[in-house]
Amino acid sequence: MTGIAERLAAILDPNSRGQGARLFGWLHLAATSVGLAAMILDTLPAPPIGDPVLNAIMAGVWGFFLLEGAARLFVAPLQAQGGTDAPTRARLLHLRSTEGLIDLLAVLAPGLALAAGLAVDDVRLFCAVWALKYIRYSVGLGLMLRVLRQARASLLSVLTVFFVVLLLAATLAYIFERKAQPEAFGSIPAAMWWAIVSLTTTGYGDAVPQTLWGRLLAGVAMMGGIAVFALWAGILATAFAEELRRRTFLRTWDLVVKVPFFQEVGAGVIADIVQRLRPLELPKGALLFRRGQRGDCMYFIVEGSITIDIQPQPIRLVAGQFFGEIALVTGGPRTASASAAEPTQLLVLDIADFRELASRRPELVKAIEVEAKRRLDENAAAAAMAALRRTGAGDG
Amino acid sequence: MTGIAERLAAILDPNSRGQGARLFGWLHLAATSVGLAAMILDTLPAPPIGDPVLNAIMAGVWGFFLLEGAARLFVAPLQAQGGTDAPTRARLLHLRSTEGLIDLLAVLAPGLALAAGLAVDDVRLFCAVWALKYIRYSVGLGLMLRVLRQARASLLSVLTVFFVVLLLAATLAYIFERKAQPEAFGSIPAAMWWAIVSLTTTGYGDAVPQTLWGRLLAGVAMMGGIAVFALWAGILATAFAEELRRRTFLRTWDLVVKVPFFQEVGAGVIADIVQRLRPLELPKGALLFRRGQRGDCMYFIVEGSITIDIQPQPIRLVAGQFFGEIALVTGGPRTASASAAEPTQLLVLDIADFRELASRRPELVKAIEVEAKRRLDENAAAAAMAALRRTGAGDG
Amino acid sequence: MTGIAERLAAILDPNSRGQGARLFGWLHLAATSVGLAAMILDTLPAPPIGDPVLNAIMAGVWGFFLLEGAARLFVAPLQAQGGTDAPTRARLLHLRSTEGLIDLLAVLAPGLALAAGLAVDDVRLFCAVWALKYIRYSVGLGLMLRVLRQARASLLSVLTVFFVVLLLAATLAYIFERKAQPEAFGSIPAAMWWAIVSLTTTGYGDAVPQTLWGRLLAGVAMMGGIAVFALWAGILATAFAEELRRRTFLRTWDLVVKVPFFQEVGAGVIADIVQRLRPLELPKGALLFRRGQRGDCMYFIVEGSITIDIQPQPIRLVAGQFFGEIALVTGGPRTASASAAEPTQLLVLDIADFRELASRRPELVKAIEVEAKRRLDENAAAAAMAALRRTGAGDG
Amino acid sequence: MTGIAERLAAILDPNSRGQGARLFGWLHLAATSVGLAAMILDTLPAPPIGDPVLNAIMAGVWGFFLLEGAARLFVAPLQAQGGTDAPTRARLLHLRSTEGLIDLLAVLAPGLALAAGLAVDDVRLFCAVWALKYIRYSVGLGLMLRVLRQARASLLSVLTVFFVVLLLAATLAYIFERKAQPEAFGSIPAAMWWAIVSLTTTGYGDAVPQTLWGRLLAGVAMMGGIAVFALWAGILATAFAEELRRRTFLRTWDLVVKVPFFQEVGAGVIADIVQRLRPLELPKGALLFRRGQRGDCMYFIVEGSITIDIQPQPIRLVAGQFFGEIALVTGGPRTASASAAEPTQLLVLDIADFRELASRRPELVKAIEVEAKRRLDENAAAAAMAALRRTGAGDG
Repeated sequence: MTGIAERLAAILDPNSRGQGARLFGWLHLAATSVGLAAMILDTLPAPPIGDPVLNAIMAGVWGFFLLEGAARLFVAPLQAQGGTDAPTRARLLHLRSTEGLIDLLAVLAPGLALAAGLAVDDVRLFCAVWALKYIRYSVGLGLMLRVLRQARASLLSVLTVFFVVLLLAATLAYIFERKAQPEAFGSIPAAMWWAIVSLTTTGYGDAVPQTLWGRLLAGVAMMGGIAVFALWAGILATAFAEELRRRTFLRTWDLVVKVPFFQEVGAGVIADIVQRLRPLELPKGALLFRRGQRGDCMYFIVEGSITIDIQPQPIRLVAGQFFGEIALVTGGPRTASASAAEPTQLLVLDIADFRELASRRPELVKAIEVEAKRRLDENAAAAAMAALRRTGAGDG
Repeated sequence: MTGIAERLAAILDPNSRGQGARLFGWLHLAATSVGLAAMILDTLPAPPIGDPVLNAIMAGVWGFFLLEGAARLFVAPLQAQGGTDAPTRARLLHLRSTEGLIDLLAVLAPGLALAAGLAVDDVRLFCAVWALKYIRYSVGLGLMLRVLRQARASLLSVLTVFFVVLLLAATLAYIFERKAQPEAFGSIPAAMWWAIVSLTTTGYGDAVPQTLWGRLLAGVAMMGGIAVFALWAGILATAFAEELRRRTFLRTWDLVVKVPFFQEVGAGVIADIVQRLRPLELPKGALLFRRGQRGDCMYFIVEGSITIDIQPQPIRLVAGQFFGEIALVTGGPRTASASAAEPTQLLVLDIADFRELASRRPELVKAIEVEAKRRLDENAAAAAMAALRRTGAGDG
Repeated sequence: MTGIAERLAAILDPNSRGQGARLFGWLHLAATSVGLAAMILDTLPAPPIGDPVLNAIMAGVWGFFLLEGAARLFVAPLQAQGGTDAPTRARLLHLRSTEGLIDLLAVLAPGLALAAGLAVDDVRLFCAVWALKYIRYSVGLGLMLRVLRQARASLLSVLTVFFVVLLLAATLAYIFERKAQPEAFGSIPAAMWWAIVSLTTTGYGDAVPQTLWGRLLAGVAMMGGIAVFALWAGILATAFAEELRRRTFLRTWDLVVKVPFFQEVGAGVIADIVQRLRPLELPKGALLFRRGQRGDCMYFIVEGSITIDIQPQPIRLVAGQFFGEIALVTGGPRTASASAAEPTQLLVLDIADFRELASRRPELVKAIEVEAKRRLDENAAAAAMAALRRTGAGDG
Repeated sequence: MTGIAERLAAILDPNSRGQGARLFGWLHLAATSVGLAAMILDTLPAPPIGDPVLNAIMAGVWGFFLLEGAARLFVAPLQAQGGTDAPTRARLLHLRSTEGLIDLLAVLAPGLALAAGLAVDDVRLFCAVWALKYIRYSVGLGLMLRVLRQARASLLSVLTVFFVVLLLAATLAYIFERKAQPEAFGSIPAAMWWAIVSLTTTGYGDAVPQTLWGRLLAGVAMMGGIAVFALWAGILATAFAEELRRRTFLRTWDLVVKVPFFQEVGAGVIADIVQRLRPLELPKGALLFRRGQRGDCMYFIVEGSITIDIQPQPIRLVAGQFFGEIALVTGGPRTASASAAEPTQLLVLDIADFRELASRRPELVKAIEVEAKRRLDENAAAAAMAALRRTGAGDG
């Protein structure tokens, strides 16, 4: 019983890279898309599919979400990391998390609408909440929520200023234009519609000031609107960049600690290195670089293994080793191709960062260069042999 | 008498966190909102409320602002920080501050309009200045004013260039389009309306070039407009980020000096720490984290106290202590829940920043780790005991 | 003769702060504005001023620019910094500079148009080039030209991509919509008009896709357009920030070298200080801060002098001295008001930067603190005496 | 035979600076522009050129691209940097590269369309792919592709959120507006058209909400759309700036290693220097600065030579030497003019960066200053002599 629960938990985990989990991820995406497509198509004047088929499809997707929600609730205790919680408490906590709420909403919204006796056509519209299911499998959800939480105070300040500007602009537009255009500017709420359409620079054109003062106001308002949204954009972009930096730092750190080479470097420089490395995942068989390409980075293997297509016979590098540094030191093209012999996790060090590091941390790069030189000499010998053979065979 | 004045000053202080001040803040917000809503609704073709009620509401709000303004004037000498000013001078200074001016305007604008013999309907429109009252209680006002002051020279440069581009675009559009569309482009002022609507990419569509040259000009103008506003946005966003950084630094610094632990660290690293800590306020009873959650930060208590729900019995941490560092060092989930036993001010150190600090300032983190290890051992023993008991009880 | 030329050169120098130069700057601004206003008003259907008056005004402004241009040409040899050039060469160089070209254009454009026999109404339109005269006196001109030059390669790349996207979008829109809307999308040039209006998100609404494929294309195009302009904005904003940083560094450096205090600090920390100081200019009599205000920065005097309104009698600080550091060290409010006794140039050190500096460069701040402590003790004594007197007088 | 291939390869290389390659670059640009112009003009209601001429032009451009593609395929083995590949493999690799694909598409697209029996008018439209040829010669292509690849994950997150917001906004707009405006909001696909036009702030005005709830929704949606695109812009701009920084670092590094002076400086400071230098290319005869100009940077010669117009006779500086540092040290104007005696590659060190470097790396600047002082003394003597002569001649 526990074995099944554990396997189920592994399949349902969005961050797992197992085959079952990937397949379920795709199935989940497909179900959401099919359900939403059915809902959208049904609103067309002449729906391409008949009502019975539509109903069957949407009931199917709903059933899938119901089962999924139940399964997630069932395995919640296994996913609680501490492991010491009582199962009921773990399940309640799951229901109160953002992900749990989305799952619950996906099942409850159309269900409650149906139970409330709404027409079937209207019940279908409640299925729009299924769109949230896309976000559930997106890595960016948590990131974006954190960004909004961090920048909350600043965003709220800008929003307050924006609201005040909106109200003053609408009042002035009402004063200037109410006589010339009693329909579009006949009340402050009507003028606020014009103001928000103009301040966001959308400009539908359904309400346009015609008096001189109204147009002067509009000019100032449109420029002020851009200023407010520039602040809005700047706050969000800054907070996002900061949060992304933190996240990348953590992810890279988790990989760096698995490479023994970096452990010997000493605690003093490891933060420097982590900020410069970039994770890269390769599926099995993927070509990393080809012989003759310009070399612009070196690689450290965290997991998996890499085949270097060197003559006379390919060599295989495994977790903990590094490669590609020859091109960085000599400045020449790659002397051999490299490809992933199995699913492989790498850390990439760009040439620009390599040189900055080399300048600041000579002790670190020393070790890399010693190894690089050694391998270069080996390769030179191998290349000479290969050239010998080729000349003998006489190609091109 | 002075006692009352002091209590009044405390209530009126927007930055105070006392109950009276909070309540007054909400009352102020409500009065502003009710007043503005009444003014807006009154302009509708069929106002939902009759004139007498409206007048009563607005008179009430005006009276509230009058009383508030008077009270603020009364307590101004108490709020002057130096305390040595003559009361009259302090009151004059208050009236000349941005906040004082907003208060004065809120009372005077509708009053003067009424005194000037305007119709009651028009007097109400002057109440739009009450919208500024929102800004008065927003933390962002001072920040934004400072940003505008700092970036003034740059913004003015961009504005000059924008004005020149606007004028040249309008003149050219007038030349190209005056014959084809004598109504929309029949004079340079008319063409300037088109130019500002297009340069801000609002595009109402009431004036659209039709000749070939006019359209080419429009294409260049729209792209140039985006370039100008990109500069505008860039300047504002950069200045805002810089000012926010300063402000956060100051606020964090004021909190850091209250934690004795940081005092021992030495002056050389304190700026480094301050830049990485983030203030967090918790109301009484708020849950900070739950057992089993992934730990991504540690906390220092500045004020208040925190209850750690550890077995066999909860412990209480007070100002000056820190917690949550176990998860950072071991990389595992939280071993206990934490919640605020009273209104509490914390400083948060993110795991990414913890690791960067650990790499650059090993001496600082050493102390944290020693304490962390000690507490971990205690907890391990407690957890073992709890596990023993749970196994005996046999759940799940 | 040379004396007059030198005085003329001083008056014409836009960067001079002499009274003559300032007056001429305002006169120049007024002439440009009057000339442009006349040109703009003349295009109205019913111009508020008659033709003869207009012609007189514009001829007057033109004459002013002619005289100004001649005067600048005359004094050009004096302004060539090397001083060793032959006068004719210096004048030719002046005519080839950006400023010289603007002056020349302002005089030649309407003159040539008149000479070419154009109608007087059309000649007036050529006066739109006078708008460039605004830029001539704006500090931002040189800055913006440098930014464009630095970012030229990146901007050109983005422009190329934008043009390709524009062409492909227009071709596809032509294919999708030519049958449904032969008027708006009947040729690729027509479709390009739609494309640029949509890619810049202006959206006049005169050409809107109606077919399904046309709308899908429009959706993708509008989002792609935003992406292209985001790059455009990012490039400009980054280059602008970088250029501004350099310029501020240079300007601050030129001021810092005039303060002996910083000379003693040593070359190693001076770049650190320069990056943190901010120049501030005060006209005579300007109030810098009031007693009782919260102190958030300290000041170094570069030129001029400052009166500190301290009891029992005000003191005067002169170039090379610093003040305001008491509030930074004690954290309390300002203990006295400060105002400029004459036009004064200050350098401002913000409290956040002061603390960062204090943490990194304790040796620098030590000296400041010693001086601060000394003055604080003096002030404390003075304040005690003042308090004594005030208590005796019994105010409030 | 190999000699011809090598010459051909040199001509076809877009990064080569040889005369043949430049000429071919211009020819390529002209052919693309002529071909696209012909295609565009042909769609006009009354094409200015007859069909036979058009067909001849387009066939000619197509033939040019065919020949070019064949030539590039022919020389592909020579351009493979490793040089050890079999020719066939190198040609296949070339076809699979981004550049090879563009070339192939330019030839195949209209060819296949013609072969498929489409009308000649429609075949011409396929020539729009020739627009991609512009990108082929733009330096920015690779940069932008890398930026998109680096920021892929973040952009996808934002896109997912955007899609969810789009769908929810469309569903709500459909619910609110379907009765009031059955034409514009009669189905969710129709409402999605409104939603994307509004979220991107394009605002054509063909679909505008009219109900109260619809307008409230529109206001929120327009502001949310700006927030999403602000993130979009921030991600792209940040990634672009980072990638540009790397690229500039690499390019500057390649130049710095050619200047012996920097080699002596030591590995520890070279990364510092590289980040501050800026490459500058001069054609033969170009004037770098004039005597009397304000000096704001110094120069290091990487390749070529510079003539300094010093009295009594000009001197010539060659690769490895530096100049212009006198003005930086003394703060005065340039004492002589400098121009390129042949095509010259320089590295520029700005005065702001010079001073920062001087503060952090006194040892580096020491050497520069010693040389500067020496040359200054020489020049002073020369200037004295020149002044003597001039006074004798009596100019101005």
